[in-house]
Order: sequence, then C-alpha cells, then structure tokens
Amino acid sequence: MPSCTITRRVHFNAAHRLHNPAESDAWNRATFGPCNNPNYHGHNYELEVTVEGPISEQTGMILDMKELKGIIQKEILDRVDHKSLNADVPFLDGRIPTAEVLAVAFWEILEGKIPAGELNEVRVHETGRNAAIVRR
Amino acid sequence: MPSCTITRRVHFNAAHRLHNPAESDAWNRATFGPCNNPNYHGHNYELEVTVEGPISEQTGMILDMKELKGIIQKEILDRVDHKSLNADVPFLDGRIPTAEVLAVAFWEILEGKIPAGELNEVRVHETGRNAAIVRR
Amino acid sequence: MPSCTITRRVHFNAAHRLHNPAESDAWNRATFGPCNNPNYHGHNYELEVTVEGPISEQTGMILDMKELKGIIQKEILDRVDHKSLNADVPFLDGRIPTAEVLAVAFWEILEGKIPAGELNEVRVHETGRNAAIVRR
Amino acid sequence: MPSCTITRRVHFNAAHRLHNPAESDAWNRATFGPCNNPNYHGHNYELEVTVEGPISEQTGMILDMKELKGIIQKEILDRVDHKSLNADVPFLDGRIPTAEVLAVAFWEILEGKIPAGELNEVRVHETGRNAAIVRR
Amino acid sequence: MPSCTITRRVHFNAAHRLHNPAESDAWNRATFGPCNNPNYHGHNYELEVTVEGPISEQTGMILDMKELKGIIQKEILDRVDHKSLNADVPFLDGRIPTAEVLAVAFWEILEGKIPAGELNEVRVHETGRNAAIVRR
Amino acid sequence: MPSCTITRRVHFNAAHRLHNPAESDAWNRATFGPCNNPNYHGHNYELEVTVEGPISEQTGMILDMKELKGIIQKEILDRVDHKSLNADVPFLDGRIPTAEVLAVAFWEILEGKIPAGELNEVRVHETGRNAAIVRR
Repeated sequence: MPSCTITRRVHFNAAHRLHNPAESDAWNRATFGPCNNPNYHGHNYELEVTVEGPISEQTGMILDMKELKGIIQKEILDRVDHKSLNADVPFLDGRIPTAEVLAVAFWEILEGKIPAGELNEVRVHETGRNAAIVRR
Repeated sequence: MPSCTITRRVHFNAAHRLHNPAESDAWNRATFGPCNNPNYHGHNYELEVTVEGPISEQTGMILDMKELKGIIQKEILDRVDHKSLNADVPFLDGRIPTAEVLAVAFWEILEGKIPAGELNEVRVHETGRNAAIVRR
Repeated sequence: MPSCTITRRVHFNAAHRLHNPAESDAWNRATFGPCNNPNYHGHNYELEVTVEGPISEQTGMILDMKELKGIIQKEILDRVDHKSLNADVPFLDGRIPTAEVLAVAFWEILEGKIPAGELNEVRVHETGRNAAIVRR
Repeated sequence: MPSCTITRRVHFNAAHRLHNPAESDAWNRATFGPCNNPNYHGHNYELEVTVEGPISEQTGMILDMKELKGIIQKEILDRVDHKSLNADVPFLDGRIPTAEVLAVAFWEILEGKIPAGELNEVRVHETGRNAAIVRR
Repeated sequence: MPSCTITRRVHFNAAHRLHNPAESDAWNRATFGPCNNPNYHGHNYELEVTVEGPISEQTGMILDMKELKGIIQKEILDRVDHKSLNADVPFLDGRIPTAEVLAVAFWEILEGKIPAGELNEVRVHETGRNAAIVRR
Repeated sequence: MPSCTITRRVHFNAAHRLHNPAESDAWNRATFGPCNNPNYHGHNYELEVTVEGPISEQTGMILDMKELKGIIQKEILDRVDHKSLNADVPFLDGRIPTAEVLAVAFWEILEGKIPAGELNEVRVHETGRNAAIVRR
C-alpha cells in the first residue's frame, strides 16, 4: 500500500527584517535590498504541516486534525503570530528570519511533538509567490 | 531525464459524518466532536489526481487531460458528488469517511483505471486548511 | 468624502438539501436535481459581512474586526457550523436553504446586532462558483 | 448603457502597529490587543483600485491598465512597500494604520491622479479575511 | 427588504490581440505594447454574471443556478471558449477585445436572455490582477 | 537534517495550439478537440520553480529569491510572455506546446542556470485545474 499523509494549513501575521549583524550596513543593504528596511516590513505567512503514518482503524485518521492544529497553535503560532520575528521570538534569536530559516526552525520544534505518525514536511509561504519547504 | 507527471484537479460537494458504530455514542462525541453531528455536515471537496509516465512523441502528452478527467468523472465523481458519503456510496460502506480514508479509497479505485502511465498521487482537500495525500 | 465599509470573511461547513415539502417528490427531483438528494450533500460556505459607517478618530476603525468576528461567531457560526441546515437550525425551519435564503436569513439576524455603523452587505458563497448577495 | 469600470489589483508587504499615542498604554493594549505589539507585526496587503469612465473607441479602454498600474506604483507602492506604515510613510504620520485609514489615505492620493475617467473604489485587503473599501 | 442578487462564475480560455486596424502599426505597438503581438497571446478568463430579483417562495431561488449556468454556456462560452477573440467570434468583429469591450459585449448579449429577475452585473477577469465590470 | 527547498512562483500569458503537423487534420481535430483551433486559444500560465540546496549561514538563504526571479524572468518569461508558444518561441519549434512539454523545456533551460543549489522541480499550471510537473 502507498504511504498516506495529512496536511494542516494555518496562518500568522508577523513583521521581519533581513539583517546579518556580523556584516556591514552596506553589505546588508546590497544583499537584502528593501527586506533590510530597519523599521521592518511584514507578511501574512501560511504554514503547512504534513504528518505521515498509518491510518487508525478505530478513527479513520492518521492523527486528529484538531489535535494537529492544537499542537501547531501552541508550539508555533502562540510564539510568532502578531510578533516581530527579529525581536519577539526567542527560538529565532541570532538567526536571519528568511522563509528557509523559519521552515527549518519550525521543523526542529515540531519534530518531537507529533503524537502519532511522524513529521513529513513543513512548508512556509511568505507570500503567494515565495515559499520554503523542509522535507524528511 | 527527470520524471514527469500531470495533475488534474476536480471538485465535488458531499455530506459526511464521522462515526464509528463499533464504539459508544459518548466515545464518538468525544473523539469526533462536531464532526459527529447525527444530521451530517458537508464540504466542497477538491480532488487532485496525478499520473506519472513517459511523454508521447505523437501527442506531447503523458495522458490526455480530457481522458483523465473523464475517468475521474465516471469512477469517482458520479458516485460521490451531491451524496452523503455515509449513506449513498457503496465503496465507503463500513468505513469512516475522513479525508485519509477517502484518499485511500479513491487510490484503490483509480489505480487500475489509468490507461497510460501509472497513478502517482491522490490528494483530497476537505477544506482549504485540511488535506490527505496518498503517494506511490 | 466617499463612504467607507469594512468586510469580514468567515467560513462554515454544513449539510443541506433543497426540498419543498409542499410539492411532490417528482416536482422536487425535477426542480432541484441532485441538490434534492434525501441524505443531503454539503458545502464549505464562505460568508462575508460588510458594515458601513464613520471611522472613529480614537481607534481608526468603523468597528473592531475582532468584535465583528465575535458577533458573526455567536449569531451565525455557532448555529450553522457543522450542522444540517435543514434539520439543526431553528431560524431556517420551513425555509429552503438555498444561498439566497441563507443570505436573507443572515441579514435579518445581523441587522439588529451591529454596534457601530450599519449592516451594508451579506454575501454567501456556496462554492467558488455560486454566491448570493443581500445589499442595503 | 450601464456604466463600466476597470479594476487593477496590486500587492505590497508592510509592517504596522495599531497604537493611539493620545491614549494610555493600558487603553491601547485593551483596545488593539496583539495588534498593539510594540515591535510591529505585518501583512501581505492586496490593493484594488477601480476607475469608472467611458470606453475610448480608439483603444477599447477606459484607461490603459499599464498606465493605471504605473500610477499606483508611483503614488502608493513606492511609498509603502517593504516599509513600516507607522515609521516610514509621511502621508500616514499621526494616523492609526488600520485598513480603513489606509483605504481613505490611498483614495485621497489617487483621486487627483487618474488621467481618464474617475476614481470609483479603493479596496484594501489586510488579510484574506479582512478588508476595507472606500467607494464614491 | 434590501435587494438580493445571485452570482454565477464560469471560465473560458481564449487568445486575443489588441490592435486597431484604423491606426498605424507603430501606433498600435506604442499603445498596446506586448498585447499587440501579431501571433496573439491568451488568458484564462473568469466571467461572473449577477442577476437581481425577487426570491421565489416555491423554490427559494431568484433563478436556478443551473439554468443561469446553461444560459451563459450557450450564449457566451460556446462562442468564445478555446477561440481567438479576434478571428473566431462574430459578435466581436470590428471591436478591440479588451476586458472592457468583452464585458460590454457580454452584457448586451445576456441582457435579453435572463428568464427571471434582471441582469445586474457582468464582471470579466482577464487575469487575477485585471478586471472590467459593467453594472446596471 | 532533512533537505530544504525554495519555490518561486511567476506567471505569463500566452497563446497556443495543440497540433502535430506530421498527422492529418482529421487526426489532430479528433485528438486535440477544441485545443486544435487554428487561430489559437490561450492561458494565464503559472510557473513554479523549486531549488534545493544548503542554507547559507551568511544570508539565511539557499538562493536569493530576487536572483531566482531574475533568472526565470530572463531565461523563460522574456521569451514566452505575451507570445504564441507555437510561432514566437524558438526553443519550442517543432514541439507540441502541452503543459508537459513546457515543463520539460523549462527544466532543460533552467537546469544549467541555477547559481546555488540545484534545480529540484518545475511545475506548470495551464489552468487552475491542469498542471504538469518535472521533478529530479
């Protein structure tokens, strides 16, 4: 039988700024362009979390979508929604909050928190045009 | 050369209820919450079917999208669209109609019906936020 | 100065059946087609509620979106989400739950409940292709 | 003949914070909730600008969409995209950057800049769920 | 009671070229830019047709969505879908097929064909960013 | 650590016709149906390009999205946007411009042009319902 996964999609709104403090201001402006704006800009992020595993005979589910939603809410959304990703999120301290870095950071947090099946993919849409994906 | 697939997306509207008759009403209410409502609720389902295979020199196609659409129409949509997934669909009898169970059931039906290439993925979107995927 | 409105969009999942008990079964089948299926079908409804009014100098708002969301939640969503629109919703008793009838019923309920400004439009999307709109 | 309008949709990414400096911090937190976060949050805004007017026999157009796009780019997007709406946008100084206030401010700027026809509507989508509209 | 409308959304795929044969090639290239390409370009058009009228007590409908869909199919889609709007559509002969001109032409055709209620709005989306609207 | 990819989504508008000149007109009409229309039809194509690679410590990026966007613009969009895919695009000469053929052709062009990481997937959406995907 082929493998089965479920995906839950959530959203959050956050400010961010791309800036590497180890480099000069000129380097940061040249590298990150308008994303380096000191007073931030922001996004409506969409986050998709995918879990792979066997389907329970008793429930017809890999993992209850409501339970998965609750885990994402507690582990991720409560810590990033309506925040500055640079100033307000301890688990991002010292990291440049690109979509790639967010996807990796969310993977690291969620990987140990899935109660049935295992984390398969984390997808972060920064806009409708830009996304980063971490896959097992 | 890397592999190539095509995907056709269709939609159907159906009622469903999550309920396991082998368990008590209390267990069902606790497990499925509002999805256990006796008089059903429903969804605008989106179904994506992906086929992998070589591209024909003569047509430039793996499989004609119109032919794939016709197969999905006959094998799936004619049996689930504007139906109750619990009461009106023989191939779901005795199964709890979660997104996962639908994706597996659709895979089982479609796998033997693809005339060129082979079935690669079945994706069932229950809402814009919840999906289940079966992949080879 | 031109007028200003705000719109809040929410969603709910419900089952329904189009059936007029004053008419024969044959008439109902001929008139409503697959929407007359006795065991229901269902939709992911999207509901948009628009309020017109002056913008407060103190808040920059016509009406707080969170407050509007709370009113829609209490007055509409708590009564229709994960329900059968035919069997579980007292304010729809004796009415055929088309998109038009839902839009009118929601307008009647919401009109007296807007604490600032006045109700301007209620839009009910039954699918991505079908909608009904009530406008002042 | 009925009237005709054209609509151009564009997007921008910005940070903002809802805060009224004439009120206490406690009032601001109670009124704006997480939208009052001192380090900002942000959005992918969608802006729709509608122009009404007669259709030119020579071009088949009310106003060239590319020209309309250019006006919006110069008058609005160059001043708000990848910015903080509180700190970086002179025409918003002293105003609370809600969706309503943005829609009014954009209307005021664009109204005098439309070279053919007249401005008919400005719509600002803060998220897929929240919008403000100014109409003539 | 406020007025009620229904909207049906359909789509079609067509090629077009913006070109005014009464003007020089140089004028056409300068005015229409890449849209003047002699070998055409094309779009996935979305067409929304809105009808206003009283709601029938017997059906709960202004007009059956399936009937409205059938009228749009016969009067519009069968004549424009998978066509060149310049070369294959008699009712567009001698007209420049901009979104504005399409919206007006569709209005003219549909206005006399609505069997219950009256035509209220025709909206033509050329892309997700560009639309034209004719309203009563 | 799991692998990471980034995806950039762009769009273009083009005309095309499905026709194999090595076959008879009757065969072409029977095989391609309305897609064989001699005067073309067209689409709003969406193109998604995915790149896999290590994340730079210095930038937090696999590859700058702006740089990826520029490569797609120069290598693909400047050659296909507002064109006929049959008549105006040298790299498609002698090929039938289906979604599958476009995805393969874009892969061939982009594969050697990615300055960091490697091309992982090319996805071509012909409509919201039809797509072709080439994956490594």
